[in-house]
Formats: sequence, structure tokens, C-alpha cells
Amino acid sequence: GDLRALAQFGKLGTGVDRTAFSEADMEARRWLLRRMEEAGLAVRIDGVGNVVGRGTGGGPAVLIGSHTDSVPKGGWLDGSMGVIYGLEIARAASESGNGAITVDVISFEDEEGTYKGLLGSASFCGEIGAEEIAGARNIEGKSLTDALQAHGLDGVAPERLEKGRYAAYLEAHIEQGPRLEAQAKRIGIVTGIVGIRRFHIVFDGQADHAGTTPMALRKDAGAAAVTFAAAMLGDFPALAGEDTVWNIGTVAFEPGAANVVPSRASLIVEFRDTSMAILDTFEAHVAKLADDTARDLGVTAAIEPSATIEPSLLDDALGAHMAAAATEHGADFMLMPSGAGHDAMMMARHMPSAMLFVPSIGGRSH
Amino acid sequence: GDLRALAQFGKLGTGVDRTAFSEADMEARRWLLRRMEEAGLAVRIDGVGNVVGRGTGGGPAVLIGSHTDSVPKGGWLDGSMGVIYGLEIARAASESGNGAITVDVISFEDEEGTYKGLLGSASFCGEIGAEEIAGARNIEGKSLTDALQAHGLDGVAPERLEKGRYAAYLEAHIEQGPRLEAQAKRIGIVTGIVGIRRFHIVFDGQADHAGTTPMALRKDAGAAAVTFAAAMLGDFPALAGEDTVWNIGTVAFEPGAANVVPSRASLIVEFRDTSMAILDTFEAHVAKLADDTARDLGVTAAIEPSATIEPSLLDDALGAHMAAAATEHGADFMLMPSGAGHDAMMMARHMPSAMLFVPSIGGRSH
Repeated sequence: GDLRALAQFGKLGTGVDRTAFSEADMEARRWLLRRMEEAGLAVRIDGVGNVVGRGTGGGPAVLIGSHTDSVPKGGWLDGSMGVIYGLEIARAASESGNGAITVDVISFEDEEGTYKGLLGSASFCGEIGAEEIAGARNIEGKSLTDALQAHGLDGVAPERLEKGRYAAYLEAHIEQGPRLEAQAKRIGIVTGIVGIRRFHIVFDGQADHAGTTPMALRKDAGAAAVTFAAAMLGDFPALAGEDTVWNIGTVAFEPGAANVVPSRASLIVEFRDTSMAILDTFEAHVAKLADDTARDLGVTAAIEPSATIEPSLLDDALGAHMAAAATEHGADFMLMPSGAGHDAMMMARHMPSAMLFVPSIGGRSH
Repeated sequence: GDLRALAQFGKLGTGVDRTAFSEADMEARRWLLRRMEEAGLAVRIDGVGNVVGRGTGGGPAVLIGSHTDSVPKGGWLDGSMGVIYGLEIARAASESGNGAITVDVISFEDEEGTYKGLLGSASFCGEIGAEEIAGARNIEGKSLTDALQAHGLDGVAPERLEKGRYAAYLEAHIEQGPRLEAQAKRIGIVTGIVGIRRFHIVFDGQADHAGTTPMALRKDAGAAAVTFAAAMLGDFPALAGEDTVWNIGTVAFEPGAANVVPSRASLIVEFRDTSMAILDTFEAHVAKLADDTARDLGVTAAIEPSATIEPSLLDDALGAHMAAAATEHGADFMLMPSGAGHDAMMMARHMPSAMLFVPSIGGRSH
């Protein structure tokens, strides 16, 4: 019921449009604050929009949550599900009344990066400075500072991670991929969040008339690019771990005419894994292949990193607890990495953290 | 001297800008008409702008020429050289006065296709109809009919090939490629003008998140395109003749984002040779490779021909005469195909034809 109610804020077709600091997002956060208060939590909206509810039970505390902001035209479960799971668990813990554990619930703000990706979790962990917040802008150029002011959040203190309070951070999320559905599993226990390495690779050769220039006299940047790309796609499987993924998402030739030998060819390559060793192996292989291909074809190659995100390992012991619970409840599960980013990436640097996936319909998140 | 004088019409930097039916082009044609008259030819400008000069000697006639129109920002020798060679040969034949041969000289109009490629030679050979002329437009939408009217050519009769008059058509041209220069040859004897086959090849797969979709569940149109392209580039040398050339001039991925598996990848492939058998072999191999790759990668492939030009074979006996003459004059020569189109393509369908190439500086035509 709470999930359905939350999906009314910013409702758009079968999904939601609830980008960070939009009216719909802030209304949803105020609704969430009330629901969390009704569940017995001490709640506030902090200086970056995080909705933080502290349980009043004794014992060690766990922090459970995710985010309720969305991408434009987003899905109704992405982020929201993990927050409402936390709300329900807090209620259950309160109702059981055994006091063995305290449950705090959080909805981080702007996980999706409307202004600054992972803003809420980074602020909570003290990993973003005032200067970075002041400089953040959305795609239309509006500043995060203006957005905070518009909602009366400027001057409100940020909620910070209280040292020693938490035994764990737990985040549930829809998978946003097809693996659970394809293997008919109800639960994914996330081993880690993949690191990403992305490179812009440019081959430079020489433009020539493709009718009058013999093959042996060409410096064909396009041929270098496809030769490199095919060799990379051919070699990667043997270097990959079970869950490594890679992609060539864009290729462009210049000048781009049917009868002109390409003088320049550029492509963007990325690969993801939870293992630094595999990321390092892939990176070294890309560099070697680009250099070898360029030398063989008489062109030059330049490789520029365009994005680097380190992998985040989640806690094995918490994963084993989730596996035991899944077995106890007769839910088929599998271990898997998360191929997309989550607030747990940030939290895992500060406390034992775990993520649980449930299947996405058709593998889609939005 | 005549070449230098001709280069003044439409002079632009070191080249000329003398597109068909421009003021510069028509002034150049009127100048050429006078020079040809001074050489003793009976000259007229016909209804499509061809400047045709008929020699008055006895014996069999040869037709010598090329075109004096240029591409925008063209080179001063491209086309012009072959016309002025004809003028000079006509003078020499007239001065020698032995009457053994009659030399006719021609400057075809719009070889370059400002309105209609090979317009002048096609009209001369009766291979273009009134309807096609009426429908031709330049890139700005101006009609060929308007261009002819503007220069008073509407209603002027076209000059047609007189049956039985000619023993041969001869055209000299700069090479527009690097081969003569690279091999330090002064003369290229052209064996034929290559045929062109050009194909638009599209692979269709499925867009997926490149982080969350395992490799085995993808339908990667981009991977298919680079795999196909690299296989093609790897296989073609073994299927090629000595002078076959091929090119992949453009590749595009959709949607074209670093973190999205490409749903569509399209490329344009062309290859050129004077041998129909080799063109057929290449075409069959492209089709097979595209189908095999699509099947292997779980995507679909569509191949659409986007240009087909048949090869033109030039006359071996005339080539042998040119080779003997080159040897007699101590000029190193080589046999070679023309990788670009020329008026001789059209003429070769109607009479024995020959082309002679001289080196281009740096292989450039313009």
C-alpha cells in the first residue's frame, strides 16, 4: 500500500517523474516523513533533502533505505522499493517489541544525479564538501544551491553518519537487468557493485580518395578502429570473470563519406567488474591492442579515460545471512554483482553493507 | 601557355572554381572555342554546352578531349589538361599537313555532375533523354533547363556522335591518385575504369543497459558491425585482384551512448575493380559475412545497394600503341586502372577508347 501511495507523487503513465528537488519529489519526501513518524521513528528532512528516521529501540542499529528521487520518466519501484522495505521493517521491529535491534530508515536525495549523483549518501558520509555542493547544477543550469533555497533547506544542518551507531546498511532494489528473470530466481544477493572504466579511443590516419588510392598506400583510421574493436571483443571473453561486462556504445568515422578513406575514427569502450584485477587486465589489454593495431595499420592511437569508478565490495557475512533467510523462506536466490550504481556504493566504504535484488519485469528499471 | 590561360577562368587560389554553366565555365568555353578556331577546327558550342571542334584533314578521325568544368574549388589540371592536349595535337596535325589523320577536339560539359554527371558525353553518345535533362537540378535546386536558357543554349541542337567517323577516342587526365608518383612513373596507361558497388548495411539488435545486461543475453548490433567489418577487411585481400580497392567510409551506432548496448549499427561499404568477376565475388562474400555474423550474434542484417557502376574496359590495342610511344620517348610507364570516373567511361561504349594518366602532385586532383 505504501509503495502504491508513494507512486502517486509525480505519477507519469505506469512510472513516476520525480527528479531530485522537483515539487513531486519534495511532496513525496514530506509524505514519507509522516509515514515514518507514524511508524514510531524520529524523523527529519536534512539540509540536502535526505529523509532520516531514527528508531528508538535498544541494541545495535541497522540503517535501511535507498532513494525516492527518480530519473525523468523513471520507474515507480526504482529506489522507492528499498525505502518502503525499510519503513515496513521498522514497523515490524517496533511491533515485535523485543528491542533486540533498532531500525533506522533513510531516503537519500538525488541518487540519480539530477544535480549530483549520490548527493544524499555522500553528504551523510561526509564525502562531499560545501564547494562541490555550491558548484552542482542540473542540465538546465539551475544550481543545487537555488534548489535547496527554493525548498527552505539552506541553513538546515545535514544529517551525518553517527560513528559506532550502525552494525550494517541494508538496501533492497529492483535488479534493473534481466538475470533473475532469465534464471527464474526470486532473490539476488549482491556481492558487490561493479567498478567502471570507460575510455575514449581515437585513431588518426589520412583521408584519401577510396577509388584512386591503392590499399597499400592508405592510412585507414576506420580500418584500425574496426580491427581493434573486433580483436577486443574476441579477446575479452578469455580474460573475463563470470560477471564481467563490456560495451562499445559509439563509433564515429571522419570525414564520413562513402568514397573517402576515414582520417579519424573514435570509439568509446567501457567495461565493468567488481574485481580490480580484471579491470586492470582489461585496461592493459585495451592499451596493447590499440597500440598494436595502430602500428600494424600505420595510424596513431590515443586513449583517454573518460570515467573511472572503483568497485565496491559488499559484506560477505551479511550476504550469507540473506542467503540463509532466502533458503528458510523457500526463495530461490543467486549471487550476483550490481552492474549499476547505488547508494550502497557510498555506504560500503563506512560500514558493512548488503544489497538484495528482486527481479525486474523484462529487465527494465524505468 | 594554353593551360595557364585556361586556369585564369574561375581562378581560386592555386586551382579553379568552374562548375558547369557558371559564368567562369562559359567564359572558358568561349575562349576555348576561339583557340580551337585559331587551330583550324570548325567549332561550335552545342545544346548542352559541349565545345566540339572538327578537323578538316582527310583520313580516319580521332576524337581527343575531356572536360573543362570543375568541381567547386577544383584543380586547374583536372579535365583541362586532356582538352588542351587535344588542342595541341590538332595544331600539330594541322602543321604537319600530311593529312594522314583528322583530329577532332572536345570539351564535354558537366563531367563533374553539378547538374548531371557525364552530361556532355552522354548527350554526345545519345545516352541521355530530354526528360532526364529536364529533371536535372543542382544542389541548390536550380534546374539544368534554367541554366541552359540563361546561356542561350535552349533550342541549340546537341552535337551527336557521327557514325563511322571515328577510329578512336583518346583522353589524357591527371591520375588523381598516388600510384605513379609512388612508383616514379611518368605515364599511366589505363586498362579500364573501375566499376563501383556500394552497399548500405544495417544490423538490428536490442538496446540494453551495458552494466546490468550479461554478455550472453545481449543482441549487440554494434558488435555485429565491427565483427563483420573486421572479417571483411581480413578476407578481402585474398579475394582481390592486383588493383581492387575497398572502403568502409562511415559507421554509426544507435542510440550511441557509452552505457547502452547498440540497438542498430549501420555502415557503408564499397569496392571497385575493372573485373566483373571480382566485383561479383566481393558482393557475394559481403552478403555471406553479414548473414553469418548476424546469425552468430543473434541480430538481423539488411543489405541495400546504394550505388552500382559497371566497369568500362579500354582498348588494349590503343594501350599497346601508347606503351610503344612511351618506350620510344624514354618515359617509364605502367598499366593501371582508373579508380575514378571519366568521360571515357561513356565513350568506350561507342568506340575504341584509351586513357593516359600523368602523375598528380601528392596524389591530389583538387
